[in-house]
Amino acid sequence: MYTKGATRALHSNTRRFSTATRLQASGLKINSERLWNTLHETCEWGADHRYGENPTDTGMARLTLNDDDACVRRWFAAEVQKLGCSLSVDQMGNMFARQSGRLNSAAPMIAMGSHLDTQPRGGRYDGILGIMAALEILRTMKESGFQTNYDVGVVNWTNEEGARFPKSMCSSGVWAGAIPIEKAWDLRDIHDPNVTLRSELERHGYLGDIACSSDPATGYPLGAHFELHIEQGPILPGNNRSIGVVQGAQGYRWLTMTVHGKDAHTGTTPFSARQDPLLASSRMIAASHDIAKRHDALASTGIIRVPSNASTNTVSSQVTFTLDIRHPQDSVVHAVQDECLKAFEAIALQDGKGVSFDWTLDTDSPAVKFDENCVASIQAAADGLVGREKSMLLTSGAGHDTVYTSKHCPSAMIFVPCLDGVSHHPTEYCSPQDCALGTQALLEAVVHYDQFRVKAERQK
Amino acid sequence: MYTKGATRALHSNTRRFSTATRLQASGLKINSERLWNTLHETCEWGADHRYGENPTDTGMARLTLNDDDACVRRWFAAEVQKLGCSLSVDQMGNMFARQSGRLNSAAPMIAMGSHLDTQPRGGRYDGILGIMAALEILRTMKESGFQTNYDVGVVNWTNEEGARFPKSMCSSGVWAGAIPIEKAWDLRDIHDPNVTLRSELERHGYLGDIACSSDPATGYPLGAHFELHIEQGPILPGNNRSIGVVQGAQGYRWLTMTVHGKDAHTGTTPFSARQDPLLASSRMIAASHDIAKRHDALASTGIIRVPSNASTNTVSSQVTFTLDIRHPQDSVVHAVQDECLKAFEAIALQDGKGVSFDWTLDTDSPAVKFDENCVASIQAAADGLVGREKSMLLTSGAGHDTVYTSKHCPSAMIFVPCLDGVSHHPTEYCSPQDCALGTQALLEAVVHYDQFRVKAERQK
Repeated sequence: MYTKGATRALHSNTRRFSTATRLQASGLKINSERLWNTLHETCEWGADHRYGENPTDTGMARLTLNDDDACVRRWFAAEVQKLGCSLSVDQMGNMFARQSGRLNSAAPMIAMGSHLDTQPRGGRYDGILGIMAALEILRTMKESGFQTNYDVGVVNWTNEEGARFPKSMCSSGVWAGAIPIEKAWDLRDIHDPNVTLRSELERHGYLGDIACSSDPATGYPLGAHFELHIEQGPILPGNNRSIGVVQGAQGYRWLTMTVHGKDAHTGTTPFSARQDPLLASSRMIAASHDIAKRHDALASTGIIRVPSNASTNTVSSQVTFTLDIRHPQDSVVHAVQDECLKAFEAIALQDGKGVSFDWTLDTDSPAVKFDENCVASIQAAADGLVGREKSMLLTSGAGHDTVYTSKHCPSAMIFVPCLDGVSHHPTEYCSPQDCALGTQALLEAVVHYDQFRVKAERQK
Repeated sequence: MYTKGATRALHSNTRRFSTATRLQASGLKINSERLWNTLHETCEWGADHRYGENPTDTGMARLTLNDDDACVRRWFAAEVQKLGCSLSVDQMGNMFARQSGRLNSAAPMIAMGSHLDTQPRGGRYDGILGIMAALEILRTMKESGFQTNYDVGVVNWTNEEGARFPKSMCSSGVWAGAIPIEKAWDLRDIHDPNVTLRSELERHGYLGDIACSSDPATGYPLGAHFELHIEQGPILPGNNRSIGVVQGAQGYRWLTMTVHGKDAHTGTTPFSARQDPLLASSRMIAASHDIAKRHDALASTGIIRVPSNASTNTVSSQVTFTLDIRHPQDSVVHAVQDECLKAFEAIALQDGKGVSFDWTLDTDSPAVKFDENCVASIQAAADGLVGREKSMLLTSGAGHDTVYTSKHCPSAMIFVPCLDGVSHHPTEYCSPQDCALGTQALLEAVVHYDQFRVKAERQK
């Protein structure tokens, strides 16, 4: 049950929400079996990478706008229309399903959004759970005749994964004005440069008329955006919590380091005469880890490349590697970066005749703080469902569409545990209980926020 | 001039050679301009990777048995036949050109061997100089009517580089019985698996009749093997020496390490929950360097690979890297390997939830000691040409065909400096003076050895 004091303790500066007198739970109960079955039935479009004997023991390879993605999109369109929703598609293929509220207000709807596309070796829950939960909520409301005050709906964001067309959170990024639509349209299939995201939108009939924008005049503005997602990390299970109330997203910076040395024969070149970029890169990667650890931050190298003609008996001429630095505070991200670069300069001089390096900043994503009222709605839902001791405040480590929507409408996220924190992998797993609990929490959070919105409007 | 005392000091156990009374210099002088011009004229077959404006400012891409290699082989065959040599080709395409000696002995010839193939981004001297020097020596002998006692000749060994067909010192290895001919024949072009070394031998008419073997009954035995080669390292120029008397080759072991972790999202996975094989590999590479340094040995990583689907925000599931350990003493190579593996075991447990690793030994090439009489012949030549203060004893860091020939006939090598020690690179450079000096040294060494051989036979 939601109590004013609890929320106030969490969000002492949440003036508008804390003035609300009392929010009501929905009284609804989602159908967890229908949710589970719908999720797995629709995962037949794109099922791949079998790892066990049960029918659902597969991962997914439903890459953005491939034929399976087109199938699940058509199915999704038909389902929401069966429920009486209107459906709009924008120029990035984002799908907006909208259920009218009691007030028949023209105000932007409260959206529950996520994505139906997956990684090439992805699982059945990342993104998919958020859409299936939203659909289950609309079904539950419909069958019990429940109406929110404001319109509510579902958004399926195109190409969240950025796996086939390499730009993650691509279409919420366009919607938020952070990515130019021409750049997004021109993204090439990573395996076939003749295929663009736009040509695939056209092929499947998903190049809509509405501008991909939050601009009320031309696009599709949202009144709020809630997203249920698996945690993709070990913190919830590690702390024996079942609901994560996500208050924001870590800041992160992605750098590409290029270390220049000189190719030399490993048998004939003494250490003292070498300029070995792979040895230097190895020391840099280890140093970045140790620096981040001291700051309680994260620094990770996912990619390292030597030239394609590298050989066992040749010191490489050049090495590139990525560096991904993260922390909930931007100042710490910057401090880790600065310390790493200083350490790298020392390492560059350390062995033999030394190496040189340069670097590019590929992505700079400042820390994001989600809307306090959305967060409070989710906390209230969690309190009502599992109590404070089974939920926890989290900061998202990964990027999500909600990070972009939060720039243009009140937004927040709910995390549910996934087994061992494994994600982006065929064995990714979220139990039926956790899927259902997250869905119920999403329902309650939306209903809370809808009530809050009415009261906030009245106080205007 | 060769003096008995000097050689004895160097080779106190060189009993046979040190009993020789006095060896004569040849009295011949190679034509350095002809040598230089011939080398660069024939480099027009395969010239590539221009780096400067002079006609010879290019590297080479004369890959084994490509059309350019076939051209230079046909040219070489014609040239040695013009000189009156007999030419034999074995089943690996090794070319044996043979000039009769004064004694008309049926004993195996004293060979000067190297290779005409290059790396894909190779230079104009590695291998090529050794063949061109040998040819120049035959030309010089011919025009002055000089005859050695025993037959002398030139060997062009096929696929020394192992760049197109991935097995280095491939055909001297078959000749020495270290590589089965079927395995060598079946080597695939690294860019076109439909093309084998054997199919290219056939295409160019270089699949000879003679067995590729040192067996006198079926193959082509050699009485000795001398090879002039660029140093491919910085030791000669760094010590201001112009001739390297190569007394053997380092032992080396090539290992491939495979480090197993677990893919995980870099934003959502705390360090404590990670199994990060790239971090562990980085620490291992740095550790192997530090261990080798303490032993005055070499340990180098030329190749590191993450899975092709690696991404900036994913901890890799697996990393492989190569480890190349070298030292003139096998016991030190083994000690470095043992210490590295022990250190790697500790590193594997160091971060997060740890990683596992396994490894394969891909190549085990024990240290080689060249024949003391061949080495003494070269030292005598160097003493006569530049004096003891401008030559030095070296151990070859790289592999060469002579390492294989040394298993079946007395063998040794001469090194000449190359600019900055750069090799396997278009800018590889050996000055006309050093090319000529090395060639003259090769001539004198062969003449010395030929004299020694006569005396040794008499003493039998």
